[in-house]
Amino acid sequence: MYVIVVYDVKVERVNKVKGFLRQNLFWIQNSVFEGELTNSEFKKVSDGLMNIIDEECDSVIIYKFMMEESLTRDVLGVEKSPIDEIL
Amino acid sequence: MYVIVVYDVKVERVNKVKGFLRQNLFWIQNSVFEGELTNSEFKKVSDGLMNIIDEECDSVIIYKFMMEESLTRDVLGVEKSPIDEIL
Repeated sequence: MYVIVVYDVKVERVNKVKGFLRQNLFWIQNSVFEGELTNSEFKKVSDGLMNIIDEECDSVIIYKFMMEESLTRDVLGVEKSPIDEIL
Repeated sequence: MYVIVVYDVKVERVNKVKGFLRQNLFWIQNSVFEGELTNSEFKKVSDGLMNIIDEECDSVIIYKFMMEESLTRDVLGVEKSPIDEIL
């Protein structure tokens, strides 16, 4: 599956979340990562995030696409990460 | 089409971007909006954002889905905006 992960976590956990996601996905923009994951990688990412975040105040959304071809993207302004090479 | 908009803009333009997107889409999380747009609404949103942002340093990504049913979402931690009622 193809995933987009967006997060809104307390500042003291931002670097931990970012570092963890960087091991598994591509950094796209402030608080946004993307990438292709197998089911087991998805579970690893999801479980790993649950271990890092504080469920009482942090929020992470994982958008999942089974059909990547139904997804297109427009970039306005600066392309912070040239993901087009990957997508 | 269904869209997810994520933005990474200089602090002095955050409120303007947020206010503009709020007129057209649903706020989901820090720097993330979602919603259904017609082609003409999409053009309005895209043009409006281009008028607000500084293309030299700001970045906005609009993910577009022609087949909304291929999109699912997992929320870890807090659901900041209860979009499930909408999706």
